[in-house]
Amino acid sequence: MKAWLHALPDLPDSLSTPSAVAAWELSCALPGTVVTLNTVPDMAESYRAERSADGSWNISGGKTGVLYGAYALILKSLSGESVPDVIESAPKYRLRMINCWDNADGSVERGYSGRSLFFEGGRLDYDPARMRELGRLLASVGLNVLCINNVNVHFPCQLLLEDYLEQAAQLADLFRPFGIRLMFSVDFSQPMRHGIPTADPLDESVRAWWKETADRVWQAIPDLAGFLVKADSEGRPGPFTYGRNHADGANMLAEAVRPHGGVIVWRCFVYNCRQDWRDLKTDRPKAAWEHYAFLDGAFAENVILQVKHGPFDFQVREPLSPLLLGMKHTNLAMELQLAQEYTGHQIDLYTMIPMWRELYEELPADNIMSIAAVSNLGRDENYTGHPLAAVNLYTYGRLAWDPDTKAEGAVTAWARLTYGFTPEDTEKLVTLLLSSRRIYEKYTAPLGIGWMITPHDHYGPNPSGYEYDLWGTYHKADRNAIGIDRTAGGTGYLDQYPPEIRRKYENPATCPDLLLLFYHRLPYSFRMKDGRTLVQRIYDDHFEGYEETERMAEMLKSLPFPSPDREIILQRIDMQLHNAREWRDIINTFFHRLSGAEDEKGRTIYL
Amino acid sequence: MKAWLHALPDLPDSLSTPSAVAAWELSCALPGTVVTLNTVPDMAESYRAERSADGSWNISGGKTGVLYGAYALILKSLSGESVPDVIESAPKYRLRMINCWDNADGSVERGYSGRSLFFEGGRLDYDPARMRELGRLLASVGLNVLCINNVNVHFPCQLLLEDYLEQAAQLADLFRPFGIRLMFSVDFSQPMRHGIPTADPLDESVRAWWKETADRVWQAIPDLAGFLVKADSEGRPGPFTYGRNHADGANMLAEAVRPHGGVIVWRCFVYNCRQDWRDLKTDRPKAAWEHYAFLDGAFAENVILQVKHGPFDFQVREPLSPLLLGMKHTNLAMELQLAQEYTGHQIDLYTMIPMWRELYEELPADNIMSIAAVSNLGRDENYTGHPLAAVNLYTYGRLAWDPDTKAEGAVTAWARLTYGFTPEDTEKLVTLLLSSRRIYEKYTAPLGIGWMITPHDHYGPNPSGYEYDLWGTYHKADRNAIGIDRTAGGTGYLDQYPPEIRRKYENPATCPDLLLLFYHRLPYSFRMKDGRTLVQRIYDDHFEGYEETERMAEMLKSLPFPSPDREIILQRIDMQLHNAREWRDIINTFFHRLSGAEDEKGRTIYL
Repeated sequence: MKAWLHALPDLPDSLSTPSAVAAWELSCALPGTVVTLNTVPDMAESYRAERSADGSWNISGGKTGVLYGAYALILKSLSGESVPDVIESAPKYRLRMINCWDNADGSVERGYSGRSLFFEGGRLDYDPARMRELGRLLASVGLNVLCINNVNVHFPCQLLLEDYLEQAAQLADLFRPFGIRLMFSVDFSQPMRHGIPTADPLDESVRAWWKETADRVWQAIPDLAGFLVKADSEGRPGPFTYGRNHADGANMLAEAVRPHGGVIVWRCFVYNCRQDWRDLKTDRPKAAWEHYAFLDGAFAENVILQVKHGPFDFQVREPLSPLLLGMKHTNLAMELQLAQEYTGHQIDLYTMIPMWRELYEELPADNIMSIAAVSNLGRDENYTGHPLAAVNLYTYGRLAWDPDTKAEGAVTAWARLTYGFTPEDTEKLVTLLLSSRRIYEKYTAPLGIGWMITPHDHYGPNPSGYEYDLWGTYHKADRNAIGIDRTAGGTGYLDQYPPEIRRKYENPATCPDLLLLFYHRLPYSFRMKDGRTLVQRIYDDHFEGYEETERMAEMLKSLPFPSPDREIILQRIDMQLHNAREWRDIINTFFHRLSGAEDEKGRTIYL
Repeated sequence: MKAWLHALPDLPDSLSTPSAVAAWELSCALPGTVVTLNTVPDMAESYRAERSADGSWNISGGKTGVLYGAYALILKSLSGESVPDVIESAPKYRLRMINCWDNADGSVERGYSGRSLFFEGGRLDYDPARMRELGRLLASVGLNVLCINNVNVHFPCQLLLEDYLEQAAQLADLFRPFGIRLMFSVDFSQPMRHGIPTADPLDESVRAWWKETADRVWQAIPDLAGFLVKADSEGRPGPFTYGRNHADGANMLAEAVRPHGGVIVWRCFVYNCRQDWRDLKTDRPKAAWEHYAFLDGAFAENVILQVKHGPFDFQVREPLSPLLLGMKHTNLAMELQLAQEYTGHQIDLYTMIPMWRELYEELPADNIMSIAAVSNLGRDENYTGHPLAAVNLYTYGRLAWDPDTKAEGAVTAWARLTYGFTPEDTEKLVTLLLSSRRIYEKYTAPLGIGWMITPHDHYGPNPSGYEYDLWGTYHKADRNAIGIDRTAGGTGYLDQYPPEIRRKYENPATCPDLLLLFYHRLPYSFRMKDGRTLVQRIYDDHFEGYEETERMAEMLKSLPFPSPDREIILQRIDMQLHNAREWRDIINTFFHRLSGAEDEKGRTIYL
């Protein structure tokens, strides 16, 4: 299985540089076309491909730029798009990362595509042929960094910096011809495994340990991209233990890796995950800002703060994280999640690029200098569990290269490359994929409320599953109203935004519907802009969401997917249908029990 | 640790018969007293102990009767009770069973006292000295059957009948001197492990397999008590697969074990555990009756139906199972649960005998001929996790021998034996233990509603945890009312009872308060007999339950428990306090959000 590159033959194991890969791929994909590659070191990752009058091509680019140029030409050609005479491009973001949450035991945290591609049984264990195939897939859409291990560094994954380093270096060798640099998640307390009694970032022995370690690691993998760190979050160790702040922690590591050109990617997913539900003052969405905003400008130049796109945690709809708007003097990366942790476990269809496009409506593309996405990859034959979930990997790569990438164009290109349907069927599939996120949103938690999911597992409805728990994710629905007031009169979360954003959301009468219950606590009788009551709007969305899932299932069944994709797709849409019905009925019943409001259209709401 | 027998020295490994054990125990426990043992085979398990004018004793009894007589005399003497001149007794119930839910991997399903005493690493693995100590503890209170493996027979526990049989026979040898016979839980589909394509109870090859197996098993363990079977329940295989009923299944096994004097103990815990919450017709408490009542009289004489005491599953309060009142022509055993699955995991204090006494208010003691309890035992030093949970094992033995055993007397005897406090402190401890169940009940789910617990784990509050799940345990609370109407006008569950019981519960105005919400759906404004509204009664109970837990903690701290009991008890009461506060606040908030009713006494109910 090669996903959108299935038209290409298997890669030989002899290709050792990006230009060799480019040449080989071009010779296979465009057999009748003469293509000259011209490496211009200064061009780095950018490229310019130009067609001559005789139909031959010349691709100029940096060391990896020629590869990206080659793939751009190949993908345009294979997809049947009309190919312009000049294709030139440079990536918007420096690091275009995939973060794998893979554990040494072979499990994948929030993985829905089988076991780890990199680990099994407590050690590195990978198939070199699949590594090349994966490198090619990632390179073909311009991704350039692969962090292979979970940000929650469970033992023995620390050994990537120690006993496993040599084997990791061999893995890096496999990805290098594809322009992909490895990254490792590291454990902030790792010095303590070596007789140092502290992990205090200002302690000299700690600093020395990290420097020596970085020297040793980069000696083995000279182009390692850097370290990814989840510190002081959900039980992970970090600088707070020693009364230090996160600039102290990140800068200490940055100093160690700087001589080698490495970066420290420091995750900003820090909040109180032991919150008392009775505590009305603490509001989890405020946490990232409170922990980081005051440190703007304090981070070393080779530190990148990696900020989840929303203030919670990858819900179906969240506002843009205020941190992405407020740290002008800090290198930022936005973190997306391809793994469908809260969005259907790669059972439910959920195409993400419409959601990402919405983020860019408020996020100036220049606010961030890198981008990351949690992987949806695994050892399944098709890599992404659900064959159609590959669209998220493909479009993420496109967006990471060019944040102006449009949803419809990218999804259409993926569909053409992957299935080569007739234009009519391609259009059907694209329409369906583009609508899938909104459909999922309709039958799940309403209007930005989020979190009505089965605890721990995060699949399936549970309206009060997190209501009295420690995770800071409460809706506080009672017989009259639902939601948390996050305006200045409430928790003040909205104050973390610039004025124009505040104004957009602070008034429930004008706040966009789909985030209404994220920002406001409202009675069920609240009148929406279209005149419906809040609770009627909730009922309507849920009935519609299920009906639209039924129609989506019919459309899917009518499309000529090849085997085995067809069988997997049909099996999963049946599961989605079952699940969408559960969501519809449970959420409607939950609100009916609370509000007592009958559905104005007389549809069945169960007791 | 020897629990209530700590005053006795270690047992030697040389005692091979009950009378040898009796003689040795008497010589240790009553060193200055001459005791003559007189075995009268016809007396079986009964005994008569008589004091002569010179202060010596003569104990007559059957083979095990002399042992029970010896322990009766020893326990009365050690506890400091006044010892009458004649002590005579015979057990009410034939099989007085402990059911261990131990798995071959060493885990214990619903076990809160450490790992299994019998298994580890996929095989039998026990300490002979502890087996003797356990045999002595069980015999000292008259228990005579020990089923060592989980009713959910997970592979490789089937091997008890096969590869592990020889080692199991050695285990049986260890318990035999204590009058304790082993029992095995068996897998109804076990013939299919041996090339037989079916487990159909009417299939000749199946019947032949079980006969041969029984012959082989009883040859190894001639006094094995029998097999315990959970069939067609929660995913277990059973006769339903083959269109047979449970009499077909049980009688087939009974025929195989009859030549050896074995019995089949057949659990009646059969219900639809894949119920659709939208289905209002199915009512789980009706299930046992529906599956078994029509088979009354159809079971072989060596089959015993084992019926859980309530129609659900060991909740803090349930009515008596109607099956225990309605099967006059069938051997019945009542199943209790010492393991605190739903009653605090041996963290919360929960003395069960007051609850058992309530069962006997409606259960004629002769309705059942045997009795069983799910074990609370494990490899912890003190056997029961919480040292005070041993009171449940002790009093269960006493009740199993004599169902007229009174709560206060039995708990007092246990307390004297175990701690030997001053009379004042003993009384404090006994008062506390006797009140502990009602206290737990007050702060958990109200008035017979049950099931407001964390799914799967079954510890801690979760008011809607099972509300939309598959387990048939719904309260359907909405803004106006809560509960399921189980009267003739509702699901009709109450119709399974004799008229006098029906009349007691069918009218909400006269139904006992503590089962009110088991039988009726009622508005929060319902007026209780004492004039309070239903919701105010719920608030009051929850505030009181926490306050009483606080007082219980104070009392516990004032008692002179020896180490290490003291440390364990204090640590657990702190956990109980934390947990009781969670229960109080979450349950009160849940009802406040639904009903909107304010507490009439103005106490804090959180938003």
